[in-house]
Amino acid sequence: MVKAVIRLPEQVTITECWARDGLQNQDKFVPTDLKVKFIEACLEAGLRSIEVTSFAHPRYLPQFSDAEEVLKRVRRTPGVALLAFVPNEKGLERCLEFCERGYAPDAVGSVVSASEAHNQANLRRTIAESKADLERVARRATKAGLTFIGGISTAFGCPIQGNVPLGDVEALAWWYADLGVSKVLFGDTTGVANPLQVEAVFQRIRERVSGLIPIAHFHNTRGTGLANCVAALRAGITHFDSAAGGIGGRPKFTKGDYPVVSDYTGNVCTEDLVALLEEIGVKTGIDLDRLEAVGRLAEEILGQELHSHTLRTGLRVKH
Amino acid sequence: MVKAVIRLPEQVTITECWARDGLQNQDKFVPTDLKVKFIEACLEAGLRSIEVTSFAHPRYLPQFSDAEEVLKRVRRTPGVALLAFVPNEKGLERCLEFCERGYAPDAVGSVVSASEAHNQANLRRTIAESKADLERVARRATKAGLTFIGGISTAFGCPIQGNVPLGDVEALAWWYADLGVSKVLFGDTTGVANPLQVEAVFQRIRERVSGLIPIAHFHNTRGTGLANCVAALRAGITHFDSAAGGIGGRPKFTKGDYPVVSDYTGNVCTEDLVALLEEIGVKTGIDLDRLEAVGRLAEEILGQELHSHTLRTGLRVKH
Repeated sequence: MVKAVIRLPEQVTITECWARDGLQNQDKFVPTDLKVKFIEACLEAGLRSIEVTSFAHPRYLPQFSDAEEVLKRVRRTPGVALLAFVPNEKGLERCLEFCERGYAPDAVGSVVSASEAHNQANLRRTIAESKADLERVARRATKAGLTFIGGISTAFGCPIQGNVPLGDVEALAWWYADLGVSKVLFGDTTGVANPLQVEAVFQRIRERVSGLIPIAHFHNTRGTGLANCVAALRAGITHFDSAAGGIGGRPKFTKGDYPVVSDYTGNVCTEDLVALLEEIGVKTGIDLDRLEAVGRLAEEILGQELHSHTLRTGLRVKH
Repeated sequence: MVKAVIRLPEQVTITECWARDGLQNQDKFVPTDLKVKFIEACLEAGLRSIEVTSFAHPRYLPQFSDAEEVLKRVRRTPGVALLAFVPNEKGLERCLEFCERGYAPDAVGSVVSASEAHNQANLRRTIAESKADLERVARRATKAGLTFIGGISTAFGCPIQGNVPLGDVEALAWWYADLGVSKVLFGDTTGVANPLQVEAVFQRIRERVSGLIPIAHFHNTRGTGLANCVAALRAGITHFDSAAGGIGGRPKFTKGDYPVVSDYTGNVCTEDLVALLEEIGVKTGIDLDRLEAVGRLAEEILGQELHSHTLRTGLRVKH
């Protein structure tokens, strides 16, 4: 391999999102046993950040009606952060009740859109209402000893309003920073980001919003997922979300709420992202052979071939 | 959209390879009518460089047994280059015979591997033998008024020998340049290139081999096709190969000749590449709506959903 002339981060942290963002638009309920088995395989592979479930209301997302059970059964490992998604304060409350029984996750995450129209269509409230709610979520989660991860959806564009001004994204990043939230996820919710934009956005956020650890969360809707990850790396980003098999995306119950381009919009595929990172010398701490097993398990559980390329071709390039 | 801080080429030329590289590993013969219809749709979409057929021996690649007929029936359009692949001097001779009858393509292309092992496995001859043959092909094609495009396969890695020293690739580029061949294709034949490598290789070739127009030819084997195109753009590359629906790759008759990772290795998808380029402001001269029709036709002809993402989600991002 030709040596890189570009200085990239030496190591990065991958958050495996299959068990939450990945599964949230899967119609068929995945039995708790299999969710736990999948998360166990992730731990074996060396993943150190794993999104394990969601405290969304089971009426909307029955896939996560076993949130407590998953949290209860997943093995705690030193150095591994288990994440749960909480859509709002009510979701956090369910989570906190369970924390008191000794089964806390390490972190909870939630989101607000940078686009007013998207926030209202997707979360059925204004951005101001979401922010008021998230302030309470952040404070209560932190008080309970949980790390709060603040998400910004449609950070790179919105299917309703189109362009999302970078100023709006930056304002939300500042708002999180002022709340004391240091981990902030920038979500390309509908997969419209392009590599130039990604590099520019992250350069500006890193230059201007001090003390933040930005997390890059891309979807491969337009085939640009890995290109956007490389662009984020170039801007110095060290935290990435991805899902085994490249599945995931907007849950189906929101369908019809706003103009939808397509459901063909999975997360960046973990196997392909990690294979690429390791190939270019960016350390992930993940064992490629065991990650291959994670990818195979993801397909086995869902009973179909998913979107990974390297699972077909081998995660390693011959050197 | 956030404005790019990076200076990229303002416009690029895309060579649509579906009718040759795309079809060469398709078992089922695509009737000549449909090949011609596809090429016609490409012309309508504004594609100005189209690989239309191959003069491979029909015994090996019956898909192209209609090479003459395709060349005869494809409409000539000012400003459009029609390309035919010639595997060797014998292929060129068949092509030249046909040229004499008034149906010449504008250009012919051929390849030699940068890896000795790959050249012997794939072309059944040594690199030295290939070079001797290609010298004759280049001279005779040029004499007949055809542009000769020199290809370098496995320019980014080889499935047999692994690493391919950049010096070997550069030596072949120089060899072409010394022959007077200015258009040289750098092929990531088995899809193992990574973006850092791509940028480094093309930077070096552009700096050192003067007078060359490098063509970037990637396969999306590991999901990195678009990321590699962006890397090539960053290195100032202005000529790209791609195929509608992202199909294509090594013909099946070579199977077993060398260790094969997988057949899951199509060209970069034209719809997705052009959608990305136009989105980041790099002009292709291609009409996105008509390109969408090209993508749909490619699927209709082959009777299956191919690998395009944007064909599912729309080629345009809402702004």
